[in-house]
Amino acid sequence: MKIVVIGGGSSYTPELVGGILEHHRSFPVSQICLVDVTDGAAKQEAVAGFCRRMIRKAGLEGKISLTATLDRRAALPGAAFVISQFRAGGMAAREKDELLPLPHGIVGQETTGPGGFAAALRHIPAALELAADMERLCPEAFLINFTNPSGIVTEALQRRSRVKCIGLCNIPLTMQRVLAAILNVAPERLELAFTGLNHLSFVTRVLLDGRDVTAEILSAPETALFWIGDFPEIGLEEARHLLRALGALPSPYLLYYYFPRQTFAAAKRRAEEGKNRAREVMAIEEELFQLYRDPQVDEKPALLSRRGGAFYSEAAVSLMRALCGGGPARQVLNVQNGSAIPDLPPEAVIETNCLIEGGAIRPFSPGPLPAAFRGLVQQVKAYEQLTVEAAVKGDKGAAYLALLNHPLVGGADRVRALLDNILRENAPWLPQFG
Amino acid sequence: MKIVVIGGGSSYTPELVGGILEHHRSFPVSQICLVDVTDGAAKQEAVAGFCRRMIRKAGLEGKISLTATLDRRAALPGAAFVISQFRAGGMAAREKDELLPLPHGIVGQETTGPGGFAAALRHIPAALELAADMERLCPEAFLINFTNPSGIVTEALQRRSRVKCIGLCNIPLTMQRVLAAILNVAPERLELAFTGLNHLSFVTRVLLDGRDVTAEILSAPETALFWIGDFPEIGLEEARHLLRALGALPSPYLLYYYFPRQTFAAAKRRAEEGKNRAREVMAIEEELFQLYRDPQVDEKPALLSRRGGAFYSEAAVSLMRALCGGGPARQVLNVQNGSAIPDLPPEAVIETNCLIEGGAIRPFSPGPLPAAFRGLVQQVKAYEQLTVEAAVKGDKGAAYLALLNHPLVGGADRVRALLDNILRENAPWLPQFG
Amino acid sequence: MKIVVIGGGSSYTPELVGGILEHHRSFPVSQICLVDVTDGAAKQEAVAGFCRRMIRKAGLEGKISLTATLDRRAALPGAAFVISQFRAGGMAAREKDELLPLPHGIVGQETTGPGGFAAALRHIPAALELAADMERLCPEAFLINFTNPSGIVTEALQRRSRVKCIGLCNIPLTMQRVLAAILNVAPERLELAFTGLNHLSFVTRVLLDGRDVTAEILSAPETALFWIGDFPEIGLEEARHLLRALGALPSPYLLYYYFPRQTFAAAKRRAEEGKNRAREVMAIEEELFQLYRDPQVDEKPALLSRRGGAFYSEAAVSLMRALCGGGPARQVLNVQNGSAIPDLPPEAVIETNCLIEGGAIRPFSPGPLPAAFRGLVQQVKAYEQLTVEAAVKGDKGAAYLALLNHPLVGGADRVRALLDNILRENAPWLPQFG
Amino acid sequence: MKIVVIGGGSSYTPELVGGILEHHRSFPVSQICLVDVTDGAAKQEAVAGFCRRMIRKAGLEGKISLTATLDRRAALPGAAFVISQFRAGGMAAREKDELLPLPHGIVGQETTGPGGFAAALRHIPAALELAADMERLCPEAFLINFTNPSGIVTEALQRRSRVKCIGLCNIPLTMQRVLAAILNVAPERLELAFTGLNHLSFVTRVLLDGRDVTAEILSAPETALFWIGDFPEIGLEEARHLLRALGALPSPYLLYYYFPRQTFAAAKRRAEEGKNRAREVMAIEEELFQLYRDPQVDEKPALLSRRGGAFYSEAAVSLMRALCGGGPARQVLNVQNGSAIPDLPPEAVIETNCLIEGGAIRPFSPGPLPAAFRGLVQQVKAYEQLTVEAAVKGDKGAAYLALLNHPLVGGADRVRALLDNILRENAPWLPQFG
Repeated sequence: MKIVVIGGGSSYTPELVGGILEHHRSFPVSQICLVDVTDGAAKQEAVAGFCRRMIRKAGLEGKISLTATLDRRAALPGAAFVISQFRAGGMAAREKDELLPLPHGIVGQETTGPGGFAAALRHIPAALELAADMERLCPEAFLINFTNPSGIVTEALQRRSRVKCIGLCNIPLTMQRVLAAILNVAPERLELAFTGLNHLSFVTRVLLDGRDVTAEILSAPETALFWIGDFPEIGLEEARHLLRALGALPSPYLLYYYFPRQTFAAAKRRAEEGKNRAREVMAIEEELFQLYRDPQVDEKPALLSRRGGAFYSEAAVSLMRALCGGGPARQVLNVQNGSAIPDLPPEAVIETNCLIEGGAIRPFSPGPLPAAFRGLVQQVKAYEQLTVEAAVKGDKGAAYLALLNHPLVGGADRVRALLDNILRENAPWLPQFG
Repeated sequence: MKIVVIGGGSSYTPELVGGILEHHRSFPVSQICLVDVTDGAAKQEAVAGFCRRMIRKAGLEGKISLTATLDRRAALPGAAFVISQFRAGGMAAREKDELLPLPHGIVGQETTGPGGFAAALRHIPAALELAADMERLCPEAFLINFTNPSGIVTEALQRRSRVKCIGLCNIPLTMQRVLAAILNVAPERLELAFTGLNHLSFVTRVLLDGRDVTAEILSAPETALFWIGDFPEIGLEEARHLLRALGALPSPYLLYYYFPRQTFAAAKRRAEEGKNRAREVMAIEEELFQLYRDPQVDEKPALLSRRGGAFYSEAAVSLMRALCGGGPARQVLNVQNGSAIPDLPPEAVIETNCLIEGGAIRPFSPGPLPAAFRGLVQQVKAYEQLTVEAAVKGDKGAAYLALLNHPLVGGADRVRALLDNILRENAPWLPQFG
Repeated sequence: MKIVVIGGGSSYTPELVGGILEHHRSFPVSQICLVDVTDGAAKQEAVAGFCRRMIRKAGLEGKISLTATLDRRAALPGAAFVISQFRAGGMAAREKDELLPLPHGIVGQETTGPGGFAAALRHIPAALELAADMERLCPEAFLINFTNPSGIVTEALQRRSRVKCIGLCNIPLTMQRVLAAILNVAPERLELAFTGLNHLSFVTRVLLDGRDVTAEILSAPETALFWIGDFPEIGLEEARHLLRALGALPSPYLLYYYFPRQTFAAAKRRAEEGKNRAREVMAIEEELFQLYRDPQVDEKPALLSRRGGAFYSEAAVSLMRALCGGGPARQVLNVQNGSAIPDLPPEAVIETNCLIEGGAIRPFSPGPLPAAFRGLVQQVKAYEQLTVEAAVKGDKGAAYLALLNHPLVGGADRVRALLDNILRENAPWLPQFG
Repeated sequence: MKIVVIGGGSSYTPELVGGILEHHRSFPVSQICLVDVTDGAAKQEAVAGFCRRMIRKAGLEGKISLTATLDRRAALPGAAFVISQFRAGGMAAREKDELLPLPHGIVGQETTGPGGFAAALRHIPAALELAADMERLCPEAFLINFTNPSGIVTEALQRRSRVKCIGLCNIPLTMQRVLAAILNVAPERLELAFTGLNHLSFVTRVLLDGRDVTAEILSAPETALFWIGDFPEIGLEEARHLLRALGALPSPYLLYYYFPRQTFAAAKRRAEEGKNRAREVMAIEEELFQLYRDPQVDEKPALLSRRGGAFYSEAAVSLMRALCGGGPARQVLNVQNGSAIPDLPPEAVIETNCLIEGGAIRPFSPGPLPAAFRGLVQQVKAYEQLTVEAAVKGDKGAAYLALLNHPLVGGADRVRALLDNILRENAPWLPQFG
């Protein structure tokens, strides 16, 4: 059982390796191969060394081999799973995604809005190159995509390659944990129904031991409190009212859509204070890599939990284990719609509850989107599909239309300058627009 | 927890009560109320007496009360589940269903073809009357429908009443057992994917411990042997070739469609020998009721297994237990299509795998029907919907079109005489055509 | 041939009557019955008197009788067509629709945004009452709806009554005239393909004598100039770029969506100058009614053309004549979607090209919405359907969700205050929220 | 304006050329290029010579040039229209299509049932080769397909090439003429609504001067008389009852489906008498070619009308003229479904009323198929799509499934022998199964 990790030098990798070690008995991986680009070579070396110490500490030294390479094509043959978690342009590019839109009057965010759009333009061509290699070198392997914006990148992969690709995100697991904490129960006792898109999903039903507690959850003040998170600009009462009216709990990324002025104000304030999430992460990563390089350290640092992406390894390992057989498993995944949500195109990638069984994935039928948020999901999916088209073809017209259709851009008059800015600032990673 | 059984005098009832007793610990029923019509009063008394002895023997005398009545409206209030298993006109009407089509050159069968059509005309108005009573007297109860043709009756109920209705059939469980026997494994290790309609379903995938063994099953000679059952007229080689070409295992009822001349010949031969299934069942029932009436007998007679309807109680009890809460359960049910099978109308009732959780039922998304049998399923669904229309409105034009559309009728020139014959022979149970 | 006009006291009525007189030969109306509410009695009398003079002048005195009444139920029997053009609350309510949203930071407009929402809440219950009367008194009559927001009111009528209802708007005819002027050709030589919703439609193709001139039209500077109309705040270059990128010419109402900040600024500026469209119309109407009351005047005043609603009578008379038989006719209408636009729900009312023939209306199949504006149309349709639900049921939750989903509201935090304001200011016309 | 005719040696060609000459003023063709295979060279020479005389007689000698060649690739460049009317294997192959199924107990027919299936296997690969040449040599040309089975061949072309392809059939025009004769009115006064597939279409509405006369037509005894045509085995009363029940007039090809035993008996009887349609046509053609070769003859022989395919040239010329521009035109065509008939797959080719305008074709929205014949149309479409798959890939499994799904085959036990027989007898034209 061989796993190839694209973007092996990520500070997340030890989290993933930790998950693999923890479940080794039920999911016996024998080979982990880290792959990164030249720029990431040093980081990958540090990560690889640390991960080998983790393996040794777990007493699995003979059982799991871990290698690191810059040659993707050498790594792929024999892979059962390829995990894509690369980030073109690194944290510096992410920082641009977060800051660039602000002077245009639009929020900056890694996956949502123009920031996510820029990331999609950078990541889709690279993801398709990876998939083309997989088609030749390991056509039976599953591609598990964490590369953001995960839903859009997964849709590009689904439509433009024959590789078996699944999009994954840690948000559904995080929401389950948070709701469990609010209800003060073990997370396993909760079953959440999700519908929508990646970073645009809604929990439409919460079962506790099979009993429907959705209404209870939606009116609990803690739920609204969790939901608004670190946006003090958003009124708690407004949030509570909204949750009850929606009849569903939206992913926290929906705050950008429901409270555009407040989230923009917060982003602007933070930027003016010299803060942004990219920079915070860079600071954390610096510390993390120091620990990774320390030959004494052989345990996942507590600090890693502040890096974001909690439960990321759990999501990945659960999925891979389920795809390898064994009993049926349920998980929230990004998969092709088919007729699961009849309000969205069949080829659209959606985020919803799936059954994994016999090496195959079947989405449940969430059915029509509730009128309460149907239009928003359709509008964002239209943006996503235009973005895929723009990214694949390097089509400026499609790129213009994609931004025009994004609900957060707020006016056709902003689009041209914004697009020019994005293309200029990301030029090194956008050969398709060359 | 109160269960009302409509058609309580059926010889099946002890099977159902046996299932309830067996699972009493996890599914604590406290009240079983049998309901039948005046003509069935004597049989119901016999059944009730026998079932009470079963309850006593199980040591549950104080815990489960069993009553029998002819007054449906008195029985319904307080019901959590209503099980419909009545048969208008009894076995005599079934015998007509099996014999009447033969002189017209068409096979006679209880649920398929003109026989099933006649049964639908008789049963739909009665089922809708029951549902109307439930809407008033126990609107929260689930109606579990076994009354045949189960898929058509369930569609009529779904479309014409607000009662929560689920159609159930024992065929999916039977197929699982047979395939388990062929593979020589425990049935629980198999997971079968069903798509299609009641008595027109196809197993498109068989998993053994999560491993796909569909191709293996389809080429095993035992599978074809089981499938053709007691139709020696059908060539084994033809059947094997067909199964492999379809890439799916059809329900044995599909034999009528794929081998119309052989199944007709068999039906005709049996009729000429004075045999038919209705008459066999009547003979078995006579023996059964003798046993039921014997105050010494307090155990389910072995003979009951020859009555047909194996696993019927297992299907019913599993479903009711799952609907009452507890963990999620999976079962093959007859439910409204929505967008689960996009080739069929949203309001159509289909037979497919469902997840039961939190008191609600969600079908999986079997997705588009394979081209190999899509057209047949669509054609039969068109027949079914015309039948519902004819039965509800007493519309002779719709009845003509229904028979015209049935693939086994074989020509417009046969329809009028056939329809006249059906309406005449079933007149006492067809007030809507009066 | 009897035509009943609901809202007979409207200053538009002479326009309609003029159209009827002009086409009397091919469409021989014999009776026109004006109906209005008590508040409109005086205006209706003035209009009726003037229209009788028009009839006399046209030499049709014996052939067309024109009556005016306040008793709708007396007027309906025998009607072949009922034209709905009423406005609950009159121009004063319209002024509120235009001004109320401004302090909330949102544009005010008669049909678009919160203003149109308020009008829908007022008009839908009244329209449904009219339809209920028609179902009893003239069930075969067509209801031609001009009452705004015409698409939403028509959808409510389609879904909540059995009356044959068609929504009509003068915008498609206006756009045809304007494009003809730009191309310097006779309007009849142009054929425009429309898709979308009322006041949210797009011209996707322009044929001149059967030759496709869409690209030519979209890049002509005059087209952008016409399109931006009296919004000097909108940059001409931006508009031209947008038109070319969309590949379609949007209705001028789309300016509100594509240039929300500029159109809001314009509305605010005008309000601060004490101007708004309602007030302008009131001034024009005052003059118009003076003319209508003048017994010397028997010709449609030139001033009427400044009232808005050009080609309104042409649209209505063409439609009625086509529905009465004769050859096939083509017109842009608001009709039920069915499968014409597969991205929208089947029950949605859409605005698209239709064929009228044999007394029936068939929409052409515009097919899937272009990705360039699919999401926006879907989002606005979701708003519209929530608005219908809110208006019909007096459901505050649905009303909240409707405003939340409107792209121009711009944030959940604004919804509650805005909704309270609308409900309070329109209370006399909103008994359903009582 | 250049037209290329593939299968130029057909006896039909003069009919087509006659149509072109008749409409030369409104549709000024300048070049007609006949193309045939070596086997057809002699016939094509005869046809070409005759057609040149027709041109001379029409006084258009200098204006229209007519050439004949065996080199398709030389002929295609510059073509505006390519008309495909070839028949692989000629009349001898057609005779086989008509006779081969009979010993299997199945009717033999040129386009319906196993005969049409065999023709599809022969014609699809050849049609795709033609389309591949067109993609290179005249990518802007329209391909007008008459090659039978026209609907299936057109679907293969639509799905497997980028050529703009339209399927055409003379049946809709024939039905219009016949109904006009029954009503004793000029055909132009009738407007017929068609839905369904080629040779499986239904007239759902007949308008006479815009007035609905469908019910009248359906109950007229002449309609049933026309419909049953030369099948005396079919009872007139049964046919009349069927037409009224269907509420639509089916194409005469539906007789094979609604009266399978009678049409089979008729085919068998004729075969036993040594008659079949192929042989009749061969006899007619022999006479025709004698006339074509006669240098004195320069007028379309009356005999041609007995050849079948009446109105074929009218359909083709109308379509080509409409596609060249000018005003809008309406015609019944075989086009891609999209969402026009929501019960059929979007990629399916359907036969329905279309609007031709601006060089583009838009089907009207016939909407859902009536339940009365929905299932049959769906079943036959499933057969058609399996046939396309089999023909394109040379896939015996798909071929087996195609025949299994054809309603006229009547049993899985017949399929293998039938398929082997078809593949053996047509081997020279089925390289894809080699």
